[in-house]
Amino acid sequence: MENTKIKDINVIAGSITVPQGFSATGDHIGIKKKRKDLTLIKSDVPATAAGVFTLNSVKAPPVLWNQQKIINNINGIVINSGVANACTGETGRKNTELMAQIYAECLNVSKESILVASTGVIGVQLPMEVISQGIKNLFPKMDNAEKSSRKAAEGIMTTDKFPKEIAIETEINGKTVRFGAIAKGSGMIHPNMATMLAFVTTDADINRKLLQKCLKECVDDSFNMISVDGDTSTNDMVIALANGQAGNSPIETEDRDYNKFKKALEYVTLYLAKQIIMDGEGVTKFLEVKVQGASTKEDARKIAKSIINSNLVKTAMFGSDANWGRIVCAAGYSGANFDHSRADVEFSSAAGAISPLISGEPVIFDEDLALNVLKEREIQILFALKDGKEEATAWGCDLTYDYVKINGEYRT
Amino acid sequence: MENTKIKDINVIAGSITVPQGFSATGDHIGIKKKRKDLTLIKSDVPATAAGVFTLNSVKAPPVLWNQQKIINNINGIVINSGVANACTGETGRKNTELMAQIYAECLNVSKESILVASTGVIGVQLPMEVISQGIKNLFPKMDNAEKSSRKAAEGIMTTDKFPKEIAIETEINGKTVRFGAIAKGSGMIHPNMATMLAFVTTDADINRKLLQKCLKECVDDSFNMISVDGDTSTNDMVIALANGQAGNSPIETEDRDYNKFKKALEYVTLYLAKQIIMDGEGVTKFLEVKVQGASTKEDARKIAKSIINSNLVKTAMFGSDANWGRIVCAAGYSGANFDHSRADVEFSSAAGAISPLISGEPVIFDEDLALNVLKEREIQILFALKDGKEEATAWGCDLTYDYVKINGEYRT
Repeated sequence: MENTKIKDINVIAGSITVPQGFSATGDHIGIKKKRKDLTLIKSDVPATAAGVFTLNSVKAPPVLWNQQKIINNINGIVINSGVANACTGETGRKNTELMAQIYAECLNVSKESILVASTGVIGVQLPMEVISQGIKNLFPKMDNAEKSSRKAAEGIMTTDKFPKEIAIETEINGKTVRFGAIAKGSGMIHPNMATMLAFVTTDADINRKLLQKCLKECVDDSFNMISVDGDTSTNDMVIALANGQAGNSPIETEDRDYNKFKKALEYVTLYLAKQIIMDGEGVTKFLEVKVQGASTKEDARKIAKSIINSNLVKTAMFGSDANWGRIVCAAGYSGANFDHSRADVEFSSAAGAISPLISGEPVIFDEDLALNVLKEREIQILFALKDGKEEATAWGCDLTYDYVKINGEYRT
Repeated sequence: MENTKIKDINVIAGSITVPQGFSATGDHIGIKKKRKDLTLIKSDVPATAAGVFTLNSVKAPPVLWNQQKIINNINGIVINSGVANACTGETGRKNTELMAQIYAECLNVSKESILVASTGVIGVQLPMEVISQGIKNLFPKMDNAEKSSRKAAEGIMTTDKFPKEIAIETEINGKTVRFGAIAKGSGMIHPNMATMLAFVTTDADINRKLLQKCLKECVDDSFNMISVDGDTSTNDMVIALANGQAGNSPIETEDRDYNKFKKALEYVTLYLAKQIIMDGEGVTKFLEVKVQGASTKEDARKIAKSIINSNLVKTAMFGSDANWGRIVCAAGYSGANFDHSRADVEFSSAAGAISPLISGEPVIFDEDLALNVLKEREIQILFALKDGKEEATAWGCDLTYDYVKINGEYRT
């Protein structure tokens, strides 16, 4: 589960307020009954921004707003939880703009430099009186204390059981550069339908084009490998702000500095993606599906995602059942091209490993060992082909009674 | 749930042995511990055949066999349950051929005129001694009695809770023509991963090309609307045999006789598709999703299937929760083109109807009425667009604790 330790990257305490020049906080303002429901983030100086947004054709107003504004230099982000402001028509569109405007007035900046996010129930209008008052009361409380970033992480939670945050520091061309991030997401059994939000701050100096490219690539290998392409919620987004306060010489080409920046951002996005899985609704097991030997990267990704999204694979893992046929079946309907007659399947965990399929032929395996392997909380599934050299990894979780319970009772 | 009564179609007792010149039976031969596990079907005269097969790229040997042989005139079908003979390598391929050969020898016909189907656990070799002896013992017992067709329906069951069969008669150009059919399938919460088999017999006289066209079209509007295109198990198939014993003048063009034939086949496939849903693993509710006003038939189908396959929609229905936002969200990631800003959503059942979304705007609705509507066992979900005139209907069921239980413990 832990990310591999990477040279030159140190994990430090806190999250989005760790990079220089960022402050934040979160609190309960009355959208939800009790839990925190508003988060504010600001950069002392206008920051370069990048965003990756849901591919759902029904996009919530804050997604549409941000897609327009992301090219501007950004001063802050306002996020509410409890109400998603999705499928809310023209009123919803105006409310998003109003949220940006109210927060912009507090910061004395243009609303065009404010991003907005909402998560929660679809089809309900935002309580704008409550939100307006909440933003005004909360904005003076922003600072860069560790406990404030924790509050910011809590303010974006919905069914999440724990806040998700990380901060790291690395060195780029002689300067210490920091990254902080918070995320929310749960219900990841079918990740496509649960809102996933992540906000990354960094004091690195990098141009917009490279920040966008880097964020997109990092998301493809992390958040998008716990999801299905095109199968995202109405509100999903990952936003990165880079305010240049670290004083590194600006990253403007794909050079060594860029690669260090990318490694750091990869570390952050992968850590948070895994945290989201660990918080999946009703999850008892963490699954990693690795596909090796595919002819193309795209085939490897398709197969890995198809396996990780299979309800029958998920329930088998919940039941500690080495039902490997379901792995092959899911690979088969993934739409990827591969030769299953030379495929291997391996299940492994801290308790050992079993290989029930070798070169396309079933192999008798020790059922007792299989049960021990699959009883562990973290399980690796390897699907190895002999078609090429491409590989991909996807992460997911089992499907349990509690998933059904949580999602059968969410709105009421 | 019941098919609409259609003029000139009478439902009669029995199933595949009702059409003239067909006999069948099923029994327990020892593949499973106790339940029936072998079914034999034969036509007294070689029959014209048509088949629709799984799109999974990992196809079980019997699927590959039948895809080759379906162009021949067919004398019989042998089906085992308990072991799917999928992912079984070269041994599996030989075993399918051997099954055809053993049954062909019993009937004194060529093995090229025998179709084969298997369903059950993936990755286990067929017990060929048991199967060989079973076929030899069972074939003399075939007849056209109603109880024999019931046994045939039972012989193909796996996790099914009840056998699925139907027989109808209609009149084509002055002759009484009969259709009989059996099917198996369950675990239809994600229909793509549960084997679905159906076998239709008819004494109509129809040429092969038209029989194939008609079967494909009927399957597209029935079995394929409880499934996802391309997302089928390794073993799925629907086979139709037409032996011409009704003596109707041969159907060789798409004339009035063909249309009557198609209506009858539609009735049979739709009835069985709905029966499969009703037998879904752990199902407490039957859902019908109707999409209206789409610009293209393909868009309507995509949206209907995306909604019916959404775990979040399914769990909401299990919890009687009018969480209509999940309907819109599922439509949004379906890949279909539509204008959600003019969409309506309606839930209805025997207890009434509620419309929580009208022309893209949420509407306050009576929560008590909503609960009453959704507490019913059969629920209709209408997603109405104003983009065009195309529509599609999909059928499915809720996602329950018992689904998780059944699929977590299937193999062990």
